[in-house]
Amino acid sequence: MTALPRIILEPIVRAALVEDFGLAGDVTAGLLSPSARFSGRFAARSAGVAAGLDCAALACALVDPAIVFTAHVADGAALAPGAALATVEGPAASVLAAERTALNFLTHLSGIATLTRAFVDAVEGTGARIAATRKTLPGLRAVQKAAVTAGGGWPHRYGLGDAVLVKDNHIAAAGGIEPALAMARAHAGHMAVIEVEVDGLDQLEAALACGPDVVLLDNFSLADLAEAVARAKGRAVLEASGGVSLATVRAIAQTGVDVISVGALTHSAPALDIGLDAM
Amino acid sequence: MTALPRIILEPIVRAALVEDFGLAGDVTAGLLSPSARFSGRFAARSAGVAAGLDCAALACALVDPAIVFTAHVADGAALAPGAALATVEGPAASVLAAERTALNFLTHLSGIATLTRAFVDAVEGTGARIAATRKTLPGLRAVQKAAVTAGGGWPHRYGLGDAVLVKDNHIAAAGGIEPALAMARAHAGHMAVIEVEVDGLDQLEAALACGPDVVLLDNFSLADLAEAVARAKGRAVLEASGGVSLATVRAIAQTGVDVISVGALTHSAPALDIGLDAM
Amino acid sequence: MTALPRIILEPIVRAALVEDFGLAGDVTAGLLSPSARFSGRFAARSAGVAAGLDCAALACALVDPAIVFTAHVADGAALAPGAALATVEGPAASVLAAERTALNFLTHLSGIATLTRAFVDAVEGTGARIAATRKTLPGLRAVQKAAVTAGGGWPHRYGLGDAVLVKDNHIAAAGGIEPALAMARAHAGHMAVIEVEVDGLDQLEAALACGPDVVLLDNFSLADLAEAVARAKGRAVLEASGGVSLATVRAIAQTGVDVISVGALTHSAPALDIGLDAM
Amino acid sequence: MTALPRIILEPIVRAALVEDFGLAGDVTAGLLSPSARFSGRFAARSAGVAAGLDCAALACALVDPAIVFTAHVADGAALAPGAALATVEGPAASVLAAERTALNFLTHLSGIATLTRAFVDAVEGTGARIAATRKTLPGLRAVQKAAVTAGGGWPHRYGLGDAVLVKDNHIAAAGGIEPALAMARAHAGHMAVIEVEVDGLDQLEAALACGPDVVLLDNFSLADLAEAVARAKGRAVLEASGGVSLATVRAIAQTGVDVISVGALTHSAPALDIGLDAM
Amino acid sequence: MTALPRIILEPIVRAALVEDFGLAGDVTAGLLSPSARFSGRFAARSAGVAAGLDCAALACALVDPAIVFTAHVADGAALAPGAALATVEGPAASVLAAERTALNFLTHLSGIATLTRAFVDAVEGTGARIAATRKTLPGLRAVQKAAVTAGGGWPHRYGLGDAVLVKDNHIAAAGGIEPALAMARAHAGHMAVIEVEVDGLDQLEAALACGPDVVLLDNFSLADLAEAVARAKGRAVLEASGGVSLATVRAIAQTGVDVISVGALTHSAPALDIGLDAM
Amino acid sequence: MTALPRIILEPIVRAALVEDFGLAGDVTAGLLSPSARFSGRFAARSAGVAAGLDCAALACALVDPAIVFTAHVADGAALAPGAALATVEGPAASVLAAERTALNFLTHLSGIATLTRAFVDAVEGTGARIAATRKTLPGLRAVQKAAVTAGGGWPHRYGLGDAVLVKDNHIAAAGGIEPALAMARAHAGHMAVIEVEVDGLDQLEAALACGPDVVLLDNFSLADLAEAVARAKGRAVLEASGGVSLATVRAIAQTGVDVISVGALTHSAPALDIGLDAM
Repeated sequence: MTALPRIILEPIVRAALVEDFGLAGDVTAGLLSPSARFSGRFAARSAGVAAGLDCAALACALVDPAIVFTAHVADGAALAPGAALATVEGPAASVLAAERTALNFLTHLSGIATLTRAFVDAVEGTGARIAATRKTLPGLRAVQKAAVTAGGGWPHRYGLGDAVLVKDNHIAAAGGIEPALAMARAHAGHMAVIEVEVDGLDQLEAALACGPDVVLLDNFSLADLAEAVARAKGRAVLEASGGVSLATVRAIAQTGVDVISVGALTHSAPALDIGLDAM
Repeated sequence: MTALPRIILEPIVRAALVEDFGLAGDVTAGLLSPSARFSGRFAARSAGVAAGLDCAALACALVDPAIVFTAHVADGAALAPGAALATVEGPAASVLAAERTALNFLTHLSGIATLTRAFVDAVEGTGARIAATRKTLPGLRAVQKAAVTAGGGWPHRYGLGDAVLVKDNHIAAAGGIEPALAMARAHAGHMAVIEVEVDGLDQLEAALACGPDVVLLDNFSLADLAEAVARAKGRAVLEASGGVSLATVRAIAQTGVDVISVGALTHSAPALDIGLDAM
Repeated sequence: MTALPRIILEPIVRAALVEDFGLAGDVTAGLLSPSARFSGRFAARSAGVAAGLDCAALACALVDPAIVFTAHVADGAALAPGAALATVEGPAASVLAAERTALNFLTHLSGIATLTRAFVDAVEGTGARIAATRKTLPGLRAVQKAAVTAGGGWPHRYGLGDAVLVKDNHIAAAGGIEPALAMARAHAGHMAVIEVEVDGLDQLEAALACGPDVVLLDNFSLADLAEAVARAKGRAVLEASGGVSLATVRAIAQTGVDVISVGALTHSAPALDIGLDAM
Repeated sequence: MTALPRIILEPIVRAALVEDFGLAGDVTAGLLSPSARFSGRFAARSAGVAAGLDCAALACALVDPAIVFTAHVADGAALAPGAALATVEGPAASVLAAERTALNFLTHLSGIATLTRAFVDAVEGTGARIAATRKTLPGLRAVQKAAVTAGGGWPHRYGLGDAVLVKDNHIAAAGGIEPALAMARAHAGHMAVIEVEVDGLDQLEAALACGPDVVLLDNFSLADLAEAVARAKGRAVLEASGGVSLATVRAIAQTGVDVISVGALTHSAPALDIGLDAM
Repeated sequence: MTALPRIILEPIVRAALVEDFGLAGDVTAGLLSPSARFSGRFAARSAGVAAGLDCAALACALVDPAIVFTAHVADGAALAPGAALATVEGPAASVLAAERTALNFLTHLSGIATLTRAFVDAVEGTGARIAATRKTLPGLRAVQKAAVTAGGGWPHRYGLGDAVLVKDNHIAAAGGIEPALAMARAHAGHMAVIEVEVDGLDQLEAALACGPDVVLLDNFSLADLAEAVARAKGRAVLEASGGVSLATVRAIAQTGVDVISVGALTHSAPALDIGLDAM
Repeated sequence: MTALPRIILEPIVRAALVEDFGLAGDVTAGLLSPSARFSGRFAARSAGVAAGLDCAALACALVDPAIVFTAHVADGAALAPGAALATVEGPAASVLAAERTALNFLTHLSGIATLTRAFVDAVEGTGARIAATRKTLPGLRAVQKAAVTAGGGWPHRYGLGDAVLVKDNHIAAAGGIEPALAMARAHAGHMAVIEVEVDGLDQLEAALACGPDVVLLDNFSLADLAEAVARAKGRAVLEASGGVSLATVRAIAQTGVDVISVGALTHSAPALDIGLDAM
């Protein structure tokens, strides 16, 4: 797993700070002596998986380079309740001004990593991969996908240009699966993966016959997923989506699909409870 | 409730589109004839409260001004399962490229409005207000606060400069509540609200004696909240925070506090399930 | 008084440098040897109050991190004619290229601080505060408000979202002061200050009866201001505005108003004469 | 005089609006019915010269395209007290939210045009031109220079790359005026004007001998200016600067110099009093 | 072939205009009457292939929406000498100010399309595709790749995240092709293409055995390319690169490789000669 | 020759990196151990002139400050085949991610410098200067002009505001050369160069009579250029343009013109072949 470089993180972190600082900055900071120092520890209040440490570190650095941020764990680390993610030391006015932005990254991204890990653990041993979707929160896709990766999941497409994904409307417009996938093959460069979404077993063979790289089995029953795996015989990567929850994901994985994509990882993960404790 | 003007929304929506379009744009759109049209309806799959309609409309307009987006409800409207939020009509390649970004705004912000409404409904008749916090997702504070408002909640501070909020570290640095609030009063302009956080009843009287506008009762028991209300006798607005859930919020409200602030509204609201159905 | 953090200053200073450097940079710098050094002193040519030191320092740092900028005074310091604000040392080509931008910040912001101090000194002992307005120069509000603060004044609202300010058009639209202020109270969150503008004594009692936080007495005569103070009996902060000059401000303050707001602080302050002298 | 195109104005106007709208927008606008309309007139409260009409119009358009802004005069027009610059009609909430930003442009830029016109009128008939300098307010150079032009003045250099301006430090570094101007000639392309600053008559002949396009006579006495004009015999454009005020400018012009540059036009022009009157 | 949407083009076109307009705009435009009109035709001075029409149209629209730009051909159209690409009509001052920026896009991008078409024509009938590389000019990748597509070529990777491309340094770091490709497979999501670069036939079988999607044959002789095709037997897409010119490309294609990638398409295409003729 | 400061380079280099890194960053970098180091040398594969070293260095620094970039030559240095421009050492994942962007700057800008040097060498001894035009690639004007300078050429105008350039359309609109140049003189400030384009000898005397600074002789034959030089007798700088190639430029220079402007320097320079070799 590769950390995101600053060239990607900086605009996102800077936007978050600009939002919080506005034109006036921290009007409460005036109560603190300029020489006052603050040492604190970012600690998990409940169990989870760490993510967003680079964002939190960068938030502190952009507020004041004099803040020393020391990560104690890496993204992806399992956290017991009370576990320290990082310590921070520096001018009190700076640390307290950066605190909320740093926490907003840590709690949101660790929440995503934590939820992802739960799905990954639920399918352990089945060989299925858990993947995110493009159902991400506006402006946060890069860091949300990285958090999914930290949790053991896979990023899937980063945008509309990453792969050809043929859906029902494209099939209807093209006049059927065969012409649609023929057009897709003709339009796609040699570096483009082609995925086709099918809504039922009746479409599967036609789709597979066209040689797509991936077939998305949308809202299939467990029985139909298993049947699809049996019919596909490895001719394409099979991805299941729709109606996936922690309660259902293992059964889905046991049908033999290769990938299970879960929008909730990025659009509905609750924050992990993390706080900054004075030391 | 005032809708956010385009000068605020445009950078947020543009960033979301830039993320999704990358350098290549929608590589699947090439399968569609340039003359193909698409009509669809954004419909709720489960009950909830609408928010983010302006964001979705703007996403469509920035992708292609030829898309006609017609809102059927306003932000804040209650949605039954299946209810239409808006219809969209235009060039198929444009509508399908804008679809995901528009949905990402609608589902996230309607999710916030829906959760907010649940809290608001839970305290109905008590006189307590439900308020958001600064625990927002990076880059999305303006639209998240607007979604809280759409759900019947209140925005609270928009940033570090909106009000003086005296917390434990400031009190410790100043040498006590009295000197801290005296400094706060001396630092604050006549347009600044002063709020002080107290961690127990023992601090309350000292805080109230200094005449703050708002006292934040952090993690108080129900009994202590009620006692605080009794002691304060209306000398300040009382805000409760900490450990607030749908299960506990009505009891908290019944203690007589004026405001209950809930970070989960913006950091942990699950998306409302909304889809785009072809018509 | 809190200095503005770099997250606020950097976009403003960067925009100023981009303006001056254009595409070609400093075409005269080619006359200087790359090894030439320059030492200079930013010195006041007339008496005043310093402001903008952080902006000037940042301008130098963004042009060339090899420039050593050493502030001799802090924002808010009184300057005698000839007093040094800062010294600068570094590569001659860099220092001379940064000079004008650094001076443009220093002279403008010190001009604001100087004018503010004159107003503050004029009301000394009366208890009245001098406040700025939203009549700021486009793009410079954050640094202009900070300069007012450096001069001993108060920033007032930073933008349209900071407080509810009910003016004549709102009153007319609402059908009177009472309904307008009732709506304001209903619309405003618990963190929002409510200010109402009244144009004459006849409106004052109606306004005060609604419990606003601040009443803006616009273009009142001295006699009416005094009468307003007498009638208000401390029920609201009273702010005077309109027709305020150095000649009139003390008399206004002596009426007992709490705040006097002065647009000229930010829209009409002449620059303080400051130059960069070679050492 | 050419109006500035939107590609130049838009970033400046947008920045000003972003400052004022923050994350919350106009919280007072909620008191107005969405269907309420507002008609108003931007009117001068004292005599002056109009400038900034395009900025004001664009501010209104960016807040709400439904606002109809109708200019009654062009930049550069003389305004009697009470004269209308423009009328505005549209949704009340939009017009009132745009009002302050539009006025901040109009009052500042008309102030510059008014002061410039006073200098231009003072030298009428002498043949001398009044020019601005690079002593502009950060971020506003393009619109300030345009306002100087509206007042009848000339813009001078727009930035460090516009012309070679050889000053004392360059002369010292080069070892004298001759080597400095020889270097300047060698470094400058055929499209670059070369100007040299001289501090006394003793430097003048040496400077002129090198064939600069412009000689800047810095802080010369009236007698020395006249002597410089006599000696130069038209060999270069002569520009006077330093100690220029409305009281002194005509005498300076009468010495026969070609150009008089005045930093105060852009760094110290008081705002022209302009208001928005409901109609 | 899909045109790029405005959300992608606008920042690129805007940056080009900002460069040309600076702070002063078109100082020569003042010679033209505001009512003067200009009609002109963008015409090819030599034969080629059109590209960049959307960029040119947008440049005109951003300068002045009153300019009417009418495309006569679409991107990808073959142009005979003298052929019109588009006509333009509008205020003379606006059209002449936009002219150079519009032409800079048209001449550069049509130059790329023209060179691409020459390569495509040279391999006609062989089945080989001509592809671009990441050797693009800074800031222009999106429009350069679109111009390659207009010329009949293929875009290849848009950035570092589009596909895993295992090169010599990765192989060395991993300890051989097998471990490198095993790591690549383990790191890559199901939507990621894996390409491996081999420098000689001796590496080919090892590479193919690992099942990459694409093998990049770098700087192979014609004989070795043919041998590689024979050995690969369709197990992977074969891409040739290195030493490709119009003189050599057909022979390369005739070896049976699937794709030939050519950096020169984007880093060394001469501009197509296009001018704006008054009508 | 002055290097461009970071305030100019940074937005250009940052845009190039953002393009390449997208949302995912370098997905192949995951194959490298975080502790792996890489040392390499940027070396010319053919003879040329170096340019773009600051851009390459900044690209590396923005990817990872831990990369040590050491320039071995300065912009403008002649490079023999195999010559090293710079060495780079640092974390392998960072260096390999920065490699392509750094190379894209080096190869393009060195290509411009190399072509410029060829033109400059071709006119050696004639006294003519080689100048660029505004025919630059969108977004790259600042660095392209600097590369021309590195090659020994001259930048000419940086934008529409740098000088008044009277062309055929302006002359037609004004009703002739005399009125056009009279208007130009009246519109131009004392810092603006005035250039007029003439299309034949018949226009030359009329143009010279008006005293322009520069006359642009567009598409003149060699004989007419020589005749123009003879007639002008030094009354204006004479610039030749149109039909200039390495084959024709010396003859053009020998006519005695002062400046020869060549659009191809920036719109058609092939990249210089430069690679990064592991050490």
